[in-house]
Amino acid sequence: MYNFPQSRDGFVWLVGAGPGAADLITLRGLRLLQKAEAVVCDDLVNRDLLAHCPAGCERHFVGKRAGLHGASQSQINALLVALAGAGKKVVRLKGGDPLIFGRAGEEMSTLRAAGIPFAIVPGVTAATAASAAAGLPLTHRDHSSAVVFVTGHQCAANTNALDWAALAQLRATLCFYMGVRRLPEIARNLRGHGMADDMPLAVISEASLPAQKILTGMLRDAEELSAGLAGQPALVVVGEVVRQAHFAAELPQLHAQAMNM
Amino acid sequence: MYNFPQSRDGFVWLVGAGPGAADLITLRGLRLLQKAEAVVCDDLVNRDLLAHCPAGCERHFVGKRAGLHGASQSQINALLVALAGAGKKVVRLKGGDPLIFGRAGEEMSTLRAAGIPFAIVPGVTAATAASAAAGLPLTHRDHSSAVVFVTGHQCAANTNALDWAALAQLRATLCFYMGVRRLPEIARNLRGHGMADDMPLAVISEASLPAQKILTGMLRDAEELSAGLAGQPALVVVGEVVRQAHFAAELPQLHAQAMNM
Repeated sequence: MYNFPQSRDGFVWLVGAGPGAADLITLRGLRLLQKAEAVVCDDLVNRDLLAHCPAGCERHFVGKRAGLHGASQSQINALLVALAGAGKKVVRLKGGDPLIFGRAGEEMSTLRAAGIPFAIVPGVTAATAASAAAGLPLTHRDHSSAVVFVTGHQCAANTNALDWAALAQLRATLCFYMGVRRLPEIARNLRGHGMADDMPLAVISEASLPAQKILTGMLRDAEELSAGLAGQPALVVVGEVVRQAHFAAELPQLHAQAMNM
Repeated sequence: MYNFPQSRDGFVWLVGAGPGAADLITLRGLRLLQKAEAVVCDDLVNRDLLAHCPAGCERHFVGKRAGLHGASQSQINALLVALAGAGKKVVRLKGGDPLIFGRAGEEMSTLRAAGIPFAIVPGVTAATAASAAAGLPLTHRDHSSAVVFVTGHQCAANTNALDWAALAQLRATLCFYMGVRRLPEIARNLRGHGMADDMPLAVISEASLPAQKILTGMLRDAEELSAGLAGQPALVVVGEVVRQAHFAAELPQLHAQAMNM
């Protein structure tokens, strides 16, 4: 069994909640929720998970839902320190995996500076859930020996960090997190650095949830695909492996059938 | 509840078993194991997971433990078709996530050609488990806006697919799966394409298991690090984010403490 330490001191677990469906959390994450004294939960996390918490567990919702106001990162950091500093066993529940675009680095630094012990429980990250939904292998012996996860926010004004030329030339599968709003800009950058107009792409929104949608096209269709899913959390996959996907007809139906029976 | 379809027809679930520890499988994966009529299990998967299977469940071990003889991919494909073709509900249990270096693409193609329905359950991939073990954020607002998963086998004779120059110039976090044996070659390739000698790296073996080990150094230390872990399944992380890791002293101790109490 995996458990909280039995000390009187506070402790923070940074737990990956998985990509959306409540049964895609890990067994370890579930067991920690069942013993938590306080949960600090991201807005995008499935609220059904909180049904596992004990009755007396404090619940705090903090959030960075794109474009909406929510707790700032520094407010979240302060909340974690306050709760654990008061001796509570805290689960910090984050969408997907805490260490991929989860800003766990900042939370770990804060906890360390405050002398609060913590540990991390990994989770299923959005890209693998999206690829599972679409029957789309992210790597393939014959087509791609690497996969890149990039944040779509990368493409805003402050883009000096990422080397677009290298990204376009890598011959890897590219997964853009929360990339749908910036898809036209992503496509312009990739085409501008030599990626072919007819490179296939898939846009997968709300993967693993009932509202899941999958659209496909080519790099040249970026504007149209982006407009079709505006405002929804979505993941964009660009690469030759999209041609290997098995979503054509059967997978979504089978998923639905399997989930209803 | 998530369930097998109630038909008399066979069905195959490609299920990610997670990175090693038995409680890092998803709840969905666990529930499917509890109802499986046959399990086809990779050698590297934690055998404790099979304790969840019903008594009458057929167990098949197939394997690609590096360097040892095991079932070939075509034999595995044939086994899946035979079991599901006989009407069984089959769980194909794969290490990590099925769609990242899991050869699920080949299994999906075979199943599709044989007319056998299938679906995929994502899992925690080795890189996120290794980074959780090491308190190492794979992305960081100030240091890395992308992370790349690459197979270490990439670096053998047949390396024409990956663009090493692009990989070295991307300014992303690089995670090499099963990369420890090829670490010297990986380091030569990266340094040969302009990556700095003092770029930090971490080698994490058997992440999430009791035998877990974490070594760190710089690109110039590759030979030595590789020798220190020869033959063990390990993941290599190269990038600036390694400087942000919190493994220095407290994390492994805390993990051990939390797991024992």
